[in-house]
Amino acid sequence: TLHYTCQWGAANRYGEKPTETGMSRLALSDDDAQVRRWFRQETERLGCKVTIDQMGNMFARRTGALRSSAPMTAMGSHLDTQPRGGRYDGILGVVAAVEVLRTMEENGYQTQYDVGIVNWTNEEGARFPKSMVSSAVWAGDIPVEKAWALQDISDPSVTMKSELQRHGYLGEVACSSDPADGYPLGAHFELHIEQGPILEQTAKKIGVVTGTQGYRWFTFTLTGRNAHTGTTPFRMRRDPLLAASKMIASSNAIAKKFGGLASTGIFKMPIDSSTNTVPSEISFSLDIRHPDDRVVAAIEKSCLESFRDVAQEDGAGVDISWTLDTDSPAAVFDKQCISAVEQAASSLVGPDGWLHIASGAGHDSVGTSKRCPTTMIFVPCKDGVSHHPEEYCSQKDCAIGTQVLLDSILVYDGF
Amino acid sequence: TLHYTCQWGAANRYGEKPTETGMSRLALSDDDAQVRRWFRQETERLGCKVTIDQMGNMFARRTGALRSSAPMTAMGSHLDTQPRGGRYDGILGVVAAVEVLRTMEENGYQTQYDVGIVNWTNEEGARFPKSMVSSAVWAGDIPVEKAWALQDISDPSVTMKSELQRHGYLGEVACSSDPADGYPLGAHFELHIEQGPILEQTAKKIGVVTGTQGYRWFTFTLTGRNAHTGTTPFRMRRDPLLAASKMIASSNAIAKKFGGLASTGIFKMPIDSSTNTVPSEISFSLDIRHPDDRVVAAIEKSCLESFRDVAQEDGAGVDISWTLDTDSPAAVFDKQCISAVEQAASSLVGPDGWLHIASGAGHDSVGTSKRCPTTMIFVPCKDGVSHHPEEYCSQKDCAIGTQVLLDSILVYDGF
Ligand SMILES: NC(=O)NCCC(=O)O
Ligand SMILES: NC(=O)NCCC(=O)O
Repeated sequence: TLHYTCQWGAANRYGEKPTETGMSRLALSDDDAQVRRWFRQETERLGCKVTIDQMGNMFARRTGALRSSAPMTAMGSHLDTQPRGGRYDGILGVVAAVEVLRTMEENGYQTQYDVGIVNWTNEEGARFPKSMVSSAVWAGDIPVEKAWALQDISDPSVTMKSELQRHGYLGEVACSSDPADGYPLGAHFELHIEQGPILEQTAKKIGVVTGTQGYRWFTFTLTGRNAHTGTTPFRMRRDPLLAASKMIASSNAIAKKFGGLASTGIFKMPIDSSTNTVPSEISFSLDIRHPDDRVVAAIEKSCLESFRDVAQEDGAGVDISWTLDTDSPAAVFDKQCISAVEQAASSLVGPDGWLHIASGAGHDSVGTSKRCPTTMIFVPCKDGVSHHPEEYCSQKDCAIGTQVLLDSILVYDGF
Repeated sequence: TLHYTCQWGAANRYGEKPTETGMSRLALSDDDAQVRRWFRQETERLGCKVTIDQMGNMFARRTGALRSSAPMTAMGSHLDTQPRGGRYDGILGVVAAVEVLRTMEENGYQTQYDVGIVNWTNEEGARFPKSMVSSAVWAGDIPVEKAWALQDISDPSVTMKSELQRHGYLGEVACSSDPADGYPLGAHFELHIEQGPILEQTAKKIGVVTGTQGYRWFTFTLTGRNAHTGTTPFRMRRDPLLAASKMIASSNAIAKKFGGLASTGIFKMPIDSSTNTVPSEISFSLDIRHPDDRVVAAIEKSCLESFRDVAQEDGAGVDISWTLDTDSPAAVFDKQCISAVEQAASSLVGPDGWLHIASGAGHDSVGTSKRCPTTMIFVPCKDGVSHHPEEYCSQKDCAIGTQVLLDSILVYDGF
């Protein structure tokens, strides 16, 4: 089913086999509209009622035996991808959820309470540049007007709202967890590839996700002065490249001390330099993460102190300025949801086949965790690679994840 | 005279006054051909015989009273500039030498031995990419065919030889210091702006140059693996950006320990990355300098050891490779030439008005010092800035330098 749905948006072939391509299915593109149509038909065929909210989030609901009016137990993820993304990130979570309902339907099985699926809109933020935006609106973190106004990254005349309208996905139900006018959820379970190497390298089949790290993203800009590398003594230099190097090394040492992460992915010299010229300006990104927001703050404080010191070292000093680009606090997942996944995992792969893991990256479950009991289920992906055409999760691992998702829903339904 | 000759190649205006522009007079361009024509006419008018060698080096010779056949005492520098160069680097040395001969001529003064001027071709290496190439051919360090074959940096169909031919500067005299067929020199004095901040910051008027630093230029390439910054623990990363940062910081500490210089001017990420992706490849330049080649070698050895260690730190390690791009050994200038400049400087600006200085940068005098007694005279330049349109040496400092050049020639002629 997963590869079937990848007919819409397949791109960036890397091998001979039909499935050896990546995906380029940007949110609310024509390809995304086609896979949404498939999702609606498929879940309706399985007896679900499909509701669309103001952000195009799709809720497919299968009625339980109790015919209770309680909010449904949801399995959610996203069908949009990065422009050079793969076939598993997000897609697996939705397609596995369809497989779960299909299995129930084929076996005539009824849960006590309603269960269902959510397809969250524009999780990647690759087209409309705010990741996890529609789950954040649902959670009340972002006003719907602000999300609607997000512009297509390559065509500012196209907004999220105009694309929702064009494809008929501007629903009437409020994008909210409020029972009065929105679509509350009883719980949210998200199956996802790990996007990291821990499960693979520890030979575990399932990660029971305890929460997601908090993270804060910064851009630092250092200004110095051009100088001849042969004729200018160190004490008379203002060398932003040397200062940036020492700051990056220092941020790494500080993060290690605190047991967190600090990483630089972008390093820019805005003006071309040469081997014998000290550059005049450097900017670099810093991404600080830890499951505890207080530790994120402590790493940030320690880095800023260290950076101010470094800026004064090695000569006449450099000027330093920075911006905070993203602030994403940590999420702590729900004990009961976690316990449901632990039971499901233990019975399928044994108590040694899974581990507790904190999600390094942000997901729609960060938003839902603020409004309903939430957890995630991780499966290994090859070499920890994601956001890349060659992103890969074996058929067997997809199946194990899907079975754990099904069993977790049944355990939770029992709770 | 200096500003008069800058009519050919003036570029990059930075102020209102007529002289407030930089220069863009690439070697053997039409502008360079025009200033060469001026140089020939002006020195012939002063009674000189002008000889052109196979590299277009121009030798203007004024006969001394002894009518000796000994090689002339030369004042040399270059009239070509960087594409975004200034009005002093090289130009000052040639124009001041013209002023010296003019002063002798106007005052009916005759030296004992022949004295004269050399205009060296393509010192900057900005158009034909090898700096100081024609003085190096003259010194026997580079075969003339190799120099002729150098291609214009933006049009490979144009070579140094074809441009020498086009402008009529492919002379018949061998580019060599060999008396049999070349043009030997008795001594070589080069007046030049310091291109660094030492004279200005120590309030000295003259630098008596004892030699030039040796330098070696490297390009290091580090290869790691893309990874998600949120999901990949440090121990599982192969982060070339972090490794490069630590290497640059380490090279700086090592150079300081040895009292030398190590500088990085170029830092490249060949593939664009993002804030939450560890990049897969980084390259950076390293420029190591010290007046003693053994110390350059020791800094290099120490850096390579440190870099190999750093490459193994912080996770799964990065691959490291490097190329040696330039190897320019230190030059030690001639005691007698230095003593001539010391005497000239002391009598003009007093014993406290000058200092001994090692040239941080390479010059044509590096080549000549291998074949004849050589030294240089430095004058201060504003903020130590060169290779920049705003490069500036005050009229007074130009005059002091020119007077010291004249007096040094007279003292040396006495020797
Ligand atoms: N899942 C994911 O890659 N989210 C993007 C934001 C982050 O870097 O955590
Ligand atoms: N004078 C000068 O800038 N030479 C270029 C080579 C060097 O960097 O020393």
